[in-house]
Amino acid sequence: MRMRKRKWVDSFLQDEKTYLIENGLDYSNIYLEIGMGMGDFITESAFLHPERFYIGLEKEPTCVARAIKKAQEKELKNLKISHANAEHLLECFKEKSVECIYLHFSDPWPKKGHHKRRLTYPTFLKMYEIILKDNGTIVFKTDNKGLFEDSLEYFEGSNLSIEEINMDYHSVKRDEPLTGYESKFKDLGNPIYYVRLRKA
Amino acid sequence: MRMRKRKWVDSFLQDEKTYLIENGLDYSNIYLEIGMGMGDFITESAFLHPERFYIGLEKEPTCVARAIKKAQEKELKNLKISHANAEHLLECFKEKSVECIYLHFSDPWPKKGHHKRRLTYPTFLKMYEIILKDNGTIVFKTDNKGLFEDSLEYFEGSNLSIEEINMDYHSVKRDEPLTGYESKFKDLGNPIYYVRLRKA
Repeated sequence: MRMRKRKWVDSFLQDEKTYLIENGLDYSNIYLEIGMGMGDFITESAFLHPERFYIGLEKEPTCVARAIKKAQEKELKNLKISHANAEHLLECFKEKSVECIYLHFSDPWPKKGHHKRRLTYPTFLKMYEIILKDNGTIVFKTDNKGLFEDSLEYFEGSNLSIEEINMDYHSVKRDEPLTGYESKFKDLGNPIYYVRLRKA
Repeated sequence: MRMRKRKWVDSFLQDEKTYLIENGLDYSNIYLEIGMGMGDFITESAFLHPERFYIGLEKEPTCVARAIKKAQEKELKNLKISHANAEHLLECFKEKSVECIYLHFSDPWPKKGHHKRRLTYPTFLKMYEIILKDNGTIVFKTDNKGLFEDSLEYFEGSNLSIEEINMDYHSVKRDEPLTGYESKFKDLGNPIYYVRLRKA
Protein backbone atom coordinates (compact mmCIF):
# COMPACT_ATOMS: atom_id res chain seq x y z
CA MET A 1 0.00 0.00 0.00
CA ARG A 2 1.43 3.38 -0.98
CA MET A 3 0.78 6.38 1.21
CA ARG A 4 2.08 9.85 1.75
CA LYS A 5 4.59 9.67 4.56
CA ARG A 6 3.55 11.66 7.59
CA LYS A 7 5.90 13.60 9.79
CA TRP A 8 5.38 11.59 12.96
CA VAL A 9 6.18 8.25 11.37
CA ASP A 10 9.98 8.23 11.43
CA SER A 11 10.43 9.23 15.05
CA PHE A 12 7.54 6.99 16.12
CA LEU A 13 9.10 3.95 14.46
CA GLN A 14 12.53 4.78 15.84
CA ASP A 15 11.23 4.78 19.42
CA GLU A 16 9.02 1.72 19.07
CA LYS A 17 10.50 -1.36 20.74
CA THR A 18 7.56 -3.65 21.37
CA TYR A 19 6.04 -4.55 18.03
CA LEU A 20 8.72 -4.06 15.40
CA ILE A 21 10.96 -7.04 14.79
CA GLU A 22 14.44 -7.11 13.38
CA ASN A 23 15.09 -9.24 10.36
CA GLY A 24 16.76 -12.48 11.20
CA LEU A 25 15.05 -13.19 14.52
CA ASP A 26 13.63 -16.68 14.31
CA TYR A 27 10.67 -17.31 16.60
CA SER A 28 10.74 -21.01 15.82
CA ASN A 29 14.18 -21.15 17.42
CA ILE A 30 13.18 -21.26 21.11
CA TYR A 31 15.82 -21.31 23.86
CA LEU A 32 14.14 -21.93 27.19
CA GLU A 33 15.60 -21.35 30.64
CA ILE A 34 13.56 -22.96 33.42
CA GLY A 35 14.11 -21.09 36.66
CA MET A 36 15.98 -18.12 35.20
CA GLY A 37 16.31 -16.36 38.58
CA MET A 38 17.16 -12.70 38.06
CA GLY A 39 17.91 -13.29 34.41
CA ASP A 40 21.67 -12.66 34.23
CA PHE A 41 22.27 -15.59 31.91
CA ILE A 42 19.22 -15.23 29.69
CA THR A 43 19.39 -11.46 29.14
CA GLU A 44 23.08 -11.65 28.25
CA SER A 45 22.50 -14.66 25.98
CA ALA A 46 19.60 -12.93 24.22
CA PHE A 47 21.82 -9.90 23.70
CA LEU A 48 24.59 -12.05 22.20
CA HIS A 49 22.24 -14.08 19.97
CA PRO A 50 19.67 -11.74 18.44
CA GLU A 51 18.66 -14.45 15.95
CA ARG A 52 17.45 -16.79 18.72
CA PHE A 53 14.21 -16.45 20.62
CA TYR A 54 14.65 -16.79 24.38
CA ILE A 55 11.95 -17.59 26.92
CA GLY A 56 12.62 -17.50 30.64
CA LEU A 57 10.42 -19.19 33.24
CA GLU A 58 10.49 -17.97 36.80
CA LYS A 59 7.92 -18.12 39.58
CA GLU A 60 9.27 -15.43 41.92
CA PRO A 61 7.76 -12.05 40.97
CA THR A 62 10.74 -10.07 42.27
CA CYS A 63 13.10 -12.09 40.09
CA VAL A 64 10.81 -11.64 37.09
CA ALA A 65 10.66 -7.88 37.62
CA ARG A 66 14.46 -7.60 37.95
CA ALA A 67 15.02 -9.69 34.84
CA ILE A 68 12.61 -7.47 32.92
CA LYS A 69 14.56 -4.40 33.98
CA LYS A 70 17.73 -5.97 32.55
CA ALA A 71 15.89 -6.76 29.32
CA GLN A 72 14.66 -3.17 29.13
CA GLU A 73 18.17 -1.78 29.63
CA LYS A 74 19.48 -3.95 26.80
CA GLU A 75 16.37 -3.16 24.69
CA LEU A 76 16.00 -6.86 23.93
CA LYS A 77 13.41 -7.87 21.37
CA ASN A 78 14.10 -11.60 21.39
CA LEU A 79 13.21 -12.41 25.00
CA LYS A 80 9.93 -13.17 26.74
CA ILE A 81 9.39 -14.05 30.35
CA SER A 82 6.68 -16.21 31.87
CA HIS A 83 5.48 -16.80 35.42
CA ALA A 84 4.45 -20.28 34.38
CA ASN A 85 5.27 -23.18 36.64
CA ALA A 86 7.47 -25.89 35.07
CA GLU A 87 4.77 -28.40 35.94
CA HIS A 88 2.59 -26.80 33.26
CA LEU A 89 5.23 -26.96 30.55
CA LEU A 90 3.06 -29.02 28.21
CA GLU A 91 0.37 -26.37 28.29
CA CYS A 92 2.88 -23.67 27.36
CA PHE A 93 4.99 -25.38 24.70
CA LYS A 94 4.01 -27.42 21.72
CA GLU A 95 5.55 -30.79 20.92
CA LYS A 96 8.97 -30.39 19.24
CA SER A 97 9.00 -26.61 19.53
CA VAL A 98 12.05 -26.00 21.73
CA GLU A 99 15.64 -26.01 20.53
CA CYS A 100 17.40 -25.95 23.90
CA ILE A 101 16.45 -26.11 27.60
CA TYR A 102 18.67 -24.64 30.31
CA LEU A 103 18.45 -25.86 33.90
CA HIS A 104 20.79 -23.71 35.93
CA PHE A 105 21.37 -24.18 39.65
CA SER A 106 17.85 -25.37 40.21
CA ASP A 107 16.66 -26.17 43.71
CA PRO A 108 18.41 -29.40 44.92
CA TRP A 109 15.45 -30.47 47.09
CA PRO A 110 17.73 -32.63 49.27
CA LYS A 111 15.01 -34.45 51.26
CA LYS A 112 14.03 -37.75 49.68
CA GLY A 113 10.35 -36.95 49.89
CA HIS A 114 10.94 -33.83 47.80
CA HIS A 115 13.06 -35.39 45.04
CA LYS A 116 10.15 -35.46 42.66
CA ARG A 117 10.18 -31.66 42.66
CA ARG A 118 13.68 -31.58 41.16
CA LEU A 119 13.75 -30.21 37.64
CA THR A 120 15.79 -33.22 36.50
CA TYR A 121 13.36 -35.75 37.97
CA PRO A 122 12.06 -38.32 35.42
CA THR A 123 8.57 -36.78 35.28
CA PHE A 124 10.15 -33.49 34.18
CA LEU A 125 12.51 -35.23 31.73
CA LYS A 126 9.47 -36.82 30.07
CA MET A 127 8.02 -33.36 29.47
CA TYR A 128 11.32 -32.00 28.14
CA GLU A 129 11.51 -34.90 25.69
CA ILE A 130 8.09 -33.95 24.36
CA ILE A 131 8.68 -30.21 23.87
CA LEU A 132 12.25 -30.54 22.54
CA LYS A 133 12.79 -30.73 18.82
CA ASP A 134 14.60 -33.74 17.42
CA ASN A 135 18.28 -33.15 18.16
CA GLY A 136 17.34 -30.53 20.74
CA THR A 137 19.61 -30.17 23.78
CA ILE A 138 19.39 -29.76 27.55
CA VAL A 139 22.13 -28.00 29.49
CA PHE A 140 22.19 -28.70 33.22
CA LYS A 141 24.54 -26.94 35.64
CA THR A 142 24.67 -27.17 39.41
CA ASP A 143 27.05 -26.73 42.31
CA ASN A 144 25.22 -29.49 44.22
CA LYS A 145 27.03 -32.81 43.92
CA GLY A 146 24.14 -34.87 45.32
CA LEU A 147 21.67 -33.39 42.85
CA PHE A 148 24.14 -33.87 40.01
CA GLU A 149 24.81 -37.53 40.78
CA ASP A 150 21.14 -38.33 41.20
CA SER A 151 20.37 -36.48 37.98
CA LEU A 152 22.82 -38.65 36.04
CA GLU A 153 20.76 -41.63 37.20
CA TYR A 154 17.52 -39.95 36.16
CA PHE A 155 19.00 -39.31 32.69
CA GLU A 156 19.84 -43.01 32.28
CA GLY A 157 16.17 -43.90 32.28
CA SER A 158 15.35 -41.27 29.64
CA ASN A 159 15.62 -41.00 25.86
CA LEU A 160 18.23 -38.30 26.25
CA SER A 161 21.84 -39.13 25.56
CA ILE A 162 24.73 -37.50 27.37
CA GLU A 163 27.00 -35.56 25.04
CA GLU A 164 29.31 -33.93 27.55
CA ILE A 165 29.93 -34.21 31.27
CA ASN A 166 32.25 -31.94 33.21
CA MET A 167 32.80 -32.13 36.97
CA ASP A 168 34.58 -28.79 37.07
CA TYR A 169 33.17 -26.76 34.22
CA HIS A 170 35.11 -23.62 35.03
CA SER A 171 38.54 -25.27 35.23
CA VAL A 172 38.74 -24.07 31.62
CA LYS A 173 38.10 -20.42 30.76
CA ARG A 174 34.55 -20.13 29.33
CA ASP A 175 33.58 -17.31 27.07
CA GLU A 176 29.83 -17.43 27.69
CA PRO A 177 27.23 -15.73 29.89
CA LEU A 178 27.06 -16.89 33.52
CA THR A 179 24.11 -16.98 35.86
CA GLY A 180 24.21 -14.91 39.04
CA TYR A 181 24.80 -18.03 41.18
CA GLU A 182 27.45 -19.31 38.84
CA SER A 183 29.54 -16.12 39.06
CA LYS A 184 29.37 -16.31 42.84
CA PHE A 185 30.31 -20.01 43.09
CA LYS A 186 33.03 -19.64 40.48
CA ASP A 187 34.57 -16.75 42.43
CA LEU A 188 34.51 -18.92 45.56
CA GLY A 189 36.36 -21.61 43.63
CA ASN A 190 33.54 -24.14 44.06
CA PRO A 191 33.32 -26.69 41.24
CA ILE A 192 30.38 -26.37 38.87
CA TYR A 193 28.98 -29.65 37.56
CA TYR A 194 27.89 -29.57 33.93
CA VAL A 195 26.10 -31.96 31.62
CA ARG A 196 24.70 -31.55 28.12
CA LEU A 197 22.09 -33.98 26.83
CA ARG A 198 20.69 -34.49 23.37
CA LYS A 199 17.33 -35.83 22.31
CA ALA A 200 17.82 -38.74 19.90
CA MET B 1 14.95 -18.58 43.81
CA ARG B 2 13.25 -17.24 46.91
CA MET B 3 13.44 -13.54 47.69
CA ARG B 4 11.78 -10.97 49.85
CA LYS B 5 9.14 -9.28 47.75
CA ARG B 6 9.80 -5.60 47.25
CA LYS B 7 7.14 -2.94 47.12
CA TRP B 8 7.66 -1.87 43.51
CA VAL B 9 7.27 -5.36 42.07
CA ASP B 10 3.50 -5.72 41.86
CA SER B 11 2.78 -2.43 40.15
CA PHE B 12 5.81 -2.81 37.89
CA LEU B 13 4.64 -6.22 36.69
CA GLN B 14 1.09 -5.02 36.25
CA ASP B 15 2.18 -2.24 33.89
CA GLU B 16 4.69 -4.29 31.94
CA LYS B 17 3.46 -5.26 28.48
CA THR B 18 6.58 -6.01 26.49
CA TYR B 19 8.35 -8.92 28.11
CA LEU B 20 5.78 -10.82 30.12
CA ILE B 21 3.88 -13.49 28.23
CA GLU B 22 0.50 -14.93 28.95
CA ASN B 23 0.22 -18.65 29.36
CA GLY B 24 -1.15 -20.31 26.30
CA LEU B 25 0.46 -18.14 23.64
CA ASP B 26 2.23 -20.47 21.26
CA TYR B 27 5.14 -18.89 19.39
CA SER B 28 5.48 -21.93 17.18
CA ASN B 29 2.01 -21.20 15.83
CA ILE B 30 2.85 -18.42 13.33
CA TYR B 31 0.13 -16.69 11.32
CA LEU B 32 1.74 -14.45 8.72
CA GLU B 33 0.09 -11.65 6.76
CA ILE B 34 2.18 -10.47 3.82
CA GLY B 35 1.29 -6.87 2.99
CA MET B 36 -0.82 -6.17 6.06
CA GLY B 37 -1.47 -2.53 5.10
CA MET B 38 -2.69 -0.58 8.09
CA GLY B 39 -3.22 -3.75 10.08
CA ASP B 40 -7.02 -3.85 10.46
CA PHE B 41 -7.20 -7.57 9.81
CA ILE B 42 -4.14 -8.67 11.73
CA THR B 43 -4.69 -6.60 14.88
CA GLU B 44 -8.28 -7.76 15.14
CA SER B 45 -7.30 -11.37 14.47
CA ALA B 46 -4.54 -11.25 17.08
CA PHE B 47 -7.05 -9.85 19.56
CA LEU B 48 -9.51 -12.67 18.82
CA HIS B 49 -6.86 -15.43 18.94
CA PRO B 50 -4.50 -14.75 21.84
CA GLU B 51 -3.09 -18.29 21.55
CA ARG B 52 -1.77 -17.67 18.02
CA PHE B 53 1.34 -15.71 17.18
CA TYR B 54 0.79 -13.18 14.38
CA ILE B 55 3.46 -11.56 12.23
CA GLY B 56 2.63 -8.81 9.76
CA LEU B 57 4.90 -7.78 6.88
CA GLU B 58 4.55 -4.33 5.38
CA LYS B 59 7.02 -2.13 3.56
CA GLU B 60 5.29 1.26 3.90
CA PRO B 61 6.45 2.96 7.12
CA THR B 62 3.24 4.93 7.55
CA CYS B 63 1.19 1.74 7.39
CA VAL B 64 3.52 0.05 9.86
CA ALA B 65 3.26 2.94 12.30
CA ARG B 66 -0.54 2.99 12.09
CA ALA B 67 -0.77 -0.75 12.60
CA ILE B 68 1.47 -0.48 15.67
CA LYS B 69 -0.84 2.16 17.12
CA LYS B 70 -3.75 -0.26 16.74
CA ALA B 71 -1.72 -3.00 18.43
CA GLN B 72 -0.87 -0.63 21.29
CA GLU B 73 -4.53 0.31 21.78
CA LYS B 74 -5.48 -3.36 22.01
CA GLU B 75 -2.38 -4.09 24.17
CA LEU B 76 -1.60 -7.07 21.96
CA LYS B 77 1.21 -9.36 23.05
CA ASN B 78 0.91 -11.89 20.25
CA LEU B 79 1.73 -9.67 17.27
CA LYS B 80 5.00 -8.56 15.73
CA ILE B 81 5.48 -6.41 12.67
CA SER B 82 8.34 -6.44 10.20
CA HIS B 83 9.45 -4.08 7.45
CA ALA B 84 10.90 -7.06 5.61
CA ASN B 85 10.30 -7.40 1.92
CA ALA B 86 8.47 -10.58 0.85
CA GLU B 87 11.40 -11.33 -1.45
CA HIS B 88 13.48 -12.03 1.65
CA LEU B 89 10.99 -14.40 3.21
CA LEU B 90 13.44 -17.29 3.37
CA GLU B 91 15.85 -15.21 5.43
CA CYS B 92 13.09 -14.35 7.91
CA PHE B 93 11.28 -17.66 8.32
CA LYS B 94 12.60 -21.13 8.83
CA GLU B 95 11.46 -24.10 6.81
CA LYS B 96 8.09 -25.44 8.03
CA SER B 97 7.64 -22.72 10.64
CA VAL B 98 4.45 -21.00 9.47
CA GLU B 99 0.93 -22.25 10.07
CA CYS B 100 -0.96 -19.90 7.77
CA ILE B 101 -0.12 -17.16 5.22
CA TYR B 102 -2.60 -14.40 4.38
CA LEU B 103 -2.40 -12.51 1.08
CA HIS B 104 -5.03 -9.81 1.18
CA PHE B 105 -5.70 -7.43 -1.68
CA SER B 106 -2.10 -7.45 -2.77
CA ASP B 107 -0.95 -5.27 -5.64
CA PRO B 108 -2.40 -6.68 -8.93
CA TRP B 109 0.59 -5.50 -11.03
CA PRO B 110 -1.53 -5.53 -14.20
CA LYS B 111 1.29 -5.00 -16.75
CA LYS B 112 2.66 -8.26 -18.09
CA GLY B 113 6.25 -7.21 -17.43
CA HIS B 114 5.39 -6.75 -13.74
CA HIS B 115 3.55 -10.03 -13.17
CA LYS B 116 6.55 -11.57 -11.45
CA ARG B 117 6.10 -9.04 -8.66
CA ARG B 118 2.67 -10.45 -7.79
CA LEU B 119 2.59 -12.17 -4.41
CA THR B 120 0.93 -15.22 -5.98
CA TYR B 121 3.56 -15.55 -8.71
CA PRO B 122 5.22 -19.02 -8.85
CA THR B 123 8.53 -17.76 -7.42
CA PHE B 124 6.66 -16.55 -4.32
CA LEU B 125 4.59 -19.76 -4.10
CA LYS B 126 7.84 -21.75 -4.00
CA MET B 127 8.93 -19.72 -0.96
CA TYR B 128 5.55 -20.15 0.75
CA GLU B 129 5.78 -23.92 0.24
CA ILE B 130 9.13 -23.92 2.02
CA ILE B 131 8.17 -21.87 5.08
CA LEU B 132 4.71 -23.42 5.53
CA LYS B 133 4.34 -26.37 7.87
CA ASP B 134 2.93 -29.58 6.49
CA ASN B 135 -0.83 -29.02 6.22
CA GLY B 136 -0.28 -25.26 6.49
CA THR B 137 -2.69 -23.00 4.61
CA ILE B 138 -2.66 -19.90 2.40
CA VAL B 139 -5.65 -17.57 2.25
CA PHE B 140 -5.76 -15.28 -0.77
CA LYS B 141 -8.39 -12.55 -1.22
CA THR B 142 -8.64 -9.93 -3.92
CA ASP B 143 -11.16 -7.71 -5.68
CA ASN B 144 -9.13 -7.93 -8.90
CA LYS B 145 -10.55 -10.54 -11.25
CA GLY B 146 -7.52 -10.59 -13.56
CA LEU B 147 -5.13 -11.19 -10.68
CA PHE B 148 -7.43 -13.87 -9.28
CA GLU B 149 -7.72 -15.79 -12.53
CA ASP B 150 -3.99 -15.65 -13.21
CA SER B 151 -3.32 -16.73 -9.63
CA LEU B 152 -5.45 -19.85 -10.07
CA GLU B 153 -3.12 -20.76 -12.96
CA TYR B 154 -0.05 -20.10 -10.83
CA PHE B 155 -1.46 -22.40 -8.12
CA GLU B 156 -1.88 -25.24 -10.63
CA GLY B 157 1.87 -25.46 -11.08
CA SER B 158 2.48 -25.58 -7.32
CA ASN B 159 2.35 -28.24 -4.61
CA LEU B 160 -0.54 -26.41 -3.00
CA SER B 161 -4.02 -27.84 -3.35
CA ILE B 162 -7.13 -25.70 -3.51
CA GLU B 163 -9.51 -26.38 -0.64
CA GLU B 164 -12.06 -23.67 -1.22
CA ILE B 165 -12.79 -21.15 -3.97
CA ASN B 166 -15.41 -18.44 -3.72
CA MET B 167 -16.08 -15.83 -6.40
CA ASP B 168 -18.21 -13.71 -4.08
CA TYR B 169 -16.92 -14.34 -0.59
CA HIS B 170 -19.22 -11.84 1.08
CA SER B 171 -22.44 -13.15 -0.45
CA VAL B 172 -22.63 -15.04 2.84
CA LYS B 173 -22.35 -13.24 6.15
CA ARG B 174 -18.81 -13.75 7.51
CA ASP B 175 -18.04 -13.48 11.16
CA GLU B 176 -14.33 -12.69 10.85
CA PRO B 177 -12.04 -9.66 10.80
CA LEU B 178 -11.90 -7.70 7.52
CA THR B 179 -9.04 -5.74 6.04
CA GLY B 180 -9.45 -2.01 5.42
CA TYR B 181 -9.81 -2.56 1.65
CA GLU B 182 -12.21 -5.41 2.14
CA SER B 183 -14.63 -3.34 4.23
CA LYS B 184 -14.59 -0.64 1.56
CA PHE B 185 -15.15 -3.01 -1.37
CA LYS B 186 -17.78 -4.95 0.50
CA ASP B 187 -19.70 -1.77 1.24
CA LEU B 188 -19.53 -0.87 -2.47
CA GLY B 189 -21.01 -4.29 -3.27
CA ASN B 190 -17.94 -5.37 -5.29
CA PRO B 191 -17.33 -9.11 -5.26
CA ILE B 192 -14.37 -10.36 -3.28
CA TYR B 193 -12.57 -13.37 -4.75
CA TYR B 194 -11.36 -15.90 -2.20
CA VAL B 195 -9.25 -19.02 -2.33
CA ARG B 196 -7.78 -21.20 0.40
CA LEU B 197 -4.87 -23.51 -0.39
CA ARG B 198 -3.29 -26.27 1.62
CA LYS B 199 0.23 -27.61 1.51
CA ALA B 200 0.16 -31.34 0.91
